[in-house]
Amino acid sequence: MFPKNCWYVACTPDEFADKPLGRQICGERIAFYRDNEGKVAAVEDFCPHRGAPLSLGYIEDGQLVCGYHGLKMGRDGKTISMPKQRVGGFPCVKSYPVEERYGFVWVWTGDASLANADDIPHLEWAVSKDWAYGGGLYHIQCDYKLMIDNLMDLTHETYVHSTSIGQKEIDEMPVKTRVVDGEVVTSRMMENVIAPPFWQSNLRTKGLPDDQPVDRWQVCRFSPPSHVLIEVGVALAGHGGQDAPADKRVNSIVVDFITPETETSHWYFWGMARNFQPEVQALTDAIRQGQGGIFAEDLEMLEEQQKNLLKFPERDLLKLDIDAGGVQARRMIDKMLQQEQQGQIPLESVNA
Amino acid sequence: MFPKNCWYVACTPDEFADKPLGRQICGERIAFYRDNEGKVAAVEDFCPHRGAPLSLGYIEDGQLVCGYHGLKMGRDGKTISMPKQRVGGFPCVKSYPVEERYGFVWVWTGDASLANADDIPHLEWAVSKDWAYGGGLYHIQCDYKLMIDNLMDLTHETYVHSTSIGQKEIDEMPVKTRVVDGEVVTSRMMENVIAPPFWQSNLRTKGLPDDQPVDRWQVCRFSPPSHVLIEVGVALAGHGGQDAPADKRVNSIVVDFITPETETSHWYFWGMARNFQPEVQALTDAIRQGQGGIFAEDLEMLEEQQKNLLKFPERDLLKLDIDAGGVQARRMIDKMLQQEQQGQIPLESVNA
Amino acid sequence: MFPKNCWYVACTPDEFADKPLGRQICGERIAFYRDNEGKVAAVEDFCPHRGAPLSLGYIEDGQLVCGYHGLKMGRDGKTISMPKQRVGGFPCVKSYPVEERYGFVWVWTGDASLANADDIPHLEWAVSKDWAYGGGLYHIQCDYKLMIDNLMDLTHETYVHSTSIGQKEIDEMPVKTRVVDGEVVTSRMMENVIAPPFWQSNLRTKGLPDDQPVDRWQVCRFSPPSHVLIEVGVALAGHGGQDAPADKRVNSIVVDFITPETETSHWYFWGMARNFQPEVQALTDAIRQGQGGIFAEDLEMLEEQQKNLLKFPERDLLKLDIDAGGVQARRMIDKMLQQEQQGQIPLESVNA
Repeated sequence: MFPKNCWYVACTPDEFADKPLGRQICGERIAFYRDNEGKVAAVEDFCPHRGAPLSLGYIEDGQLVCGYHGLKMGRDGKTISMPKQRVGGFPCVKSYPVEERYGFVWVWTGDASLANADDIPHLEWAVSKDWAYGGGLYHIQCDYKLMIDNLMDLTHETYVHSTSIGQKEIDEMPVKTRVVDGEVVTSRMMENVIAPPFWQSNLRTKGLPDDQPVDRWQVCRFSPPSHVLIEVGVALAGHGGQDAPADKRVNSIVVDFITPETETSHWYFWGMARNFQPEVQALTDAIRQGQGGIFAEDLEMLEEQQKNLLKFPERDLLKLDIDAGGVQARRMIDKMLQQEQQGQIPLESVNA
Repeated sequence: MFPKNCWYVACTPDEFADKPLGRQICGERIAFYRDNEGKVAAVEDFCPHRGAPLSLGYIEDGQLVCGYHGLKMGRDGKTISMPKQRVGGFPCVKSYPVEERYGFVWVWTGDASLANADDIPHLEWAVSKDWAYGGGLYHIQCDYKLMIDNLMDLTHETYVHSTSIGQKEIDEMPVKTRVVDGEVVTSRMMENVIAPPFWQSNLRTKGLPDDQPVDRWQVCRFSPPSHVLIEVGVALAGHGGQDAPADKRVNSIVVDFITPETETSHWYFWGMARNFQPEVQALTDAIRQGQGGIFAEDLEMLEEQQKNLLKFPERDLLKLDIDAGGVQARRMIDKMLQQEQQGQIPLESVNA
Repeated sequence: MFPKNCWYVACTPDEFADKPLGRQICGERIAFYRDNEGKVAAVEDFCPHRGAPLSLGYIEDGQLVCGYHGLKMGRDGKTISMPKQRVGGFPCVKSYPVEERYGFVWVWTGDASLANADDIPHLEWAVSKDWAYGGGLYHIQCDYKLMIDNLMDLTHETYVHSTSIGQKEIDEMPVKTRVVDGEVVTSRMMENVIAPPFWQSNLRTKGLPDDQPVDRWQVCRFSPPSHVLIEVGVALAGHGGQDAPADKRVNSIVVDFITPETETSHWYFWGMARNFQPEVQALTDAIRQGQGGIFAEDLEMLEEQQKNLLKFPERDLLKLDIDAGGVQARRMIDKMLQQEQQGQIPLESVNA
């Protein structure tokens, strides 16, 4: 079960540039395409004629055509036409509220009448010319909540990513977790440390010395249903850390959109937004390549963790202070589920 | 569940030329081989000694020898011998009525006492020297009935095979479906059209112009349990279509023997019989290669359709006029199943 | 279900020379490593923190460190430490009695209080300088008892290994099966036969003629839970067979340790110990390579046999004289299971 009355990142526009994209999200099989007005559409990936996946078809004049017998499906899930057929009585398939924003396609898999695009979080780094973004997508065979746990407890960097962003001070410094304005925020400050390789490289890029002590920070922000944005950076020690002047620090935002596919698999949209040298595409590419390698290190661990949990379903996991971010995030998800089951209006809509 | 008191195409003789062939048909695991009289034999693929598949063994003096401990199995399912053993009390395995005819091996997986080789349909194209045949075999992960549907509704050619045999007129011309003499016949006539690439090529082969209007026809004949033979061709327009004199037309028979393996997989024997230049082997090869490519285009669609149907088992599919062939064929299959469950004599035997 | 109060071969030390080894044995997921005293340790492959497999971690100062968040696990299944955490209340994971002996690691997956390393069988060939050993490991998708059957009935050599160690006389000579001192012993003597290729090669190696009649023997010894040691050899005919003087014979011991993974898969440790030219490593390598090839011939047969048995679970297999070794071995295994379920002390401990 997944919260469904909420916006998930479904895909990026390049994924259906040439032909429709079929993707399962929250257990729903969905076909994504761009219609004749250039707007993204999302309908159930099931032709009402014979059950073929519509995503195996093609787009003609902005309409989705089933590749089996030529049924044309409308973006509202109603059949538009089929050669030599009257289609008025054809059963509808589901259509999904969908929104293209910030370089992503966002989909709402729940009650369409509750969908409000204003609930999509504002992402300043995605619209400001002071920022650049690069990222990618991994398909991972584990419960999406294990990925949330992973990202809300960065002590794993010391072990999983020891050669790039990990450093001993991460799990030596205590972490602080708060729930603020519908977000779970987990923060860790490391003062007067040596920057790990990834940050040394970024310091050099910005013309700052890479061998002097820095103050390093990590502020993980979970927002429902499953977004984790992490403010990360280093500043030359003693200049105020996260509040240091721009010419004394280098920082970025780790972007994680985590979208359930099944109970034991998910789509992981990862990336990094930075506000230094945003115009340098080669830097974007280099960071993306580096980050892609670092984040791939998590995959085996998460997938094997999933197998262990399936083998021992009755075992309780520990909930230590370092796990508080994941624990609070799961609590928020559970609450959303409970509200949906009770037919309540989702939290976001109340807040809006 | 499958109708079992009937003949299915099981394999072709080349498949067990060197060693026994193990193949599952209608849920039965069967070992095929040629005995010492040169006759094809079919026994359950299970050694009564320790359960090893007999098809992993070899043939010695026309006898099937288990490759594990040397048991010799007779074509009647009774053990012939085993080194140093008295085999009189060994349990029997099933043996299956089997017939080699028309270049295929036909098997009867039901009540052996009802098997009558005369019920195997007569295939004139397979015995006449005026015809040549070429074909192949695909193993497909979907219910065999989805393949019957596919072949009884050729409007899919417009979409799935758009670059070879598809053309817009197929789904613009109405189709006529009748049940005649225990066959389902679906026919479509397209008058005064331009031939699609596959037929242009055949027109040239026969020395006919490929750029003039033609009358095109498709007559799909389903006969139980799962054979679909399709009379296809084009004639220069205005010369009588399917009845045009031989020097004004080019035509052939698409041959489809569709044999269930499990509820969601089947063996698809496809081919084409033609009555022009039957002696030219290079033409047979060229047509087979072309047809193999065209029919491979159906595989992904059918297998993904199957996955969708498994995900939504409760959904009814539409039954349009174009689907009437498949609907009638399924009705015939259901009737056979019903008769078998009630212990009635099968339809073919009554008709014979 | 598997007998658990007994020693199984789990792995060889080279398998965890560089990093921990994760392996499932008798349904238990176990991490193997070497501790700071150089002693092998075996703990459940499940970190009590978040369920990650401990085997994905690393060894630091002889301690097993979880590769996810740095928990240090003790060889007793109790957490030693975790950065910034008090671990006193952490739940324990299982630890397993484990013993390194004869070049193998032996594990006890049952009640640890009953484990006694003295119950590990004495293997003279593994400690004597007159013997050399070479072997390997196969992961096989079938019930481990099918492998025991395989090895206790060597008539299969005539069919499965016809080009190396098989010969017609194997299944022509009767076999004798006895239960002696908690062992099942199946023996076969073949007098005055021509040696098969494998033994001809060994005769030449020892400077004996390879074209003269020999007496050949095979003595299969099953000991619980699943060890099969087979004394094999040939002697120039008429010199006393297995009791012939050393310069008239060549012989060795086929070593088979068969360790269940799941109900339908197992780890097969195979090898050969020989007491001729034990110092020649090249000979060890050559024999291992040859044996590896021969034993690989069994894999397809066993895995396909398993599939057949799963498809026909209700069928009884035959129990012929040649099967008596496997039948008696299974009887011993069943008795162990029964005793364990009734909470009785295992047979070995009583005997010891």
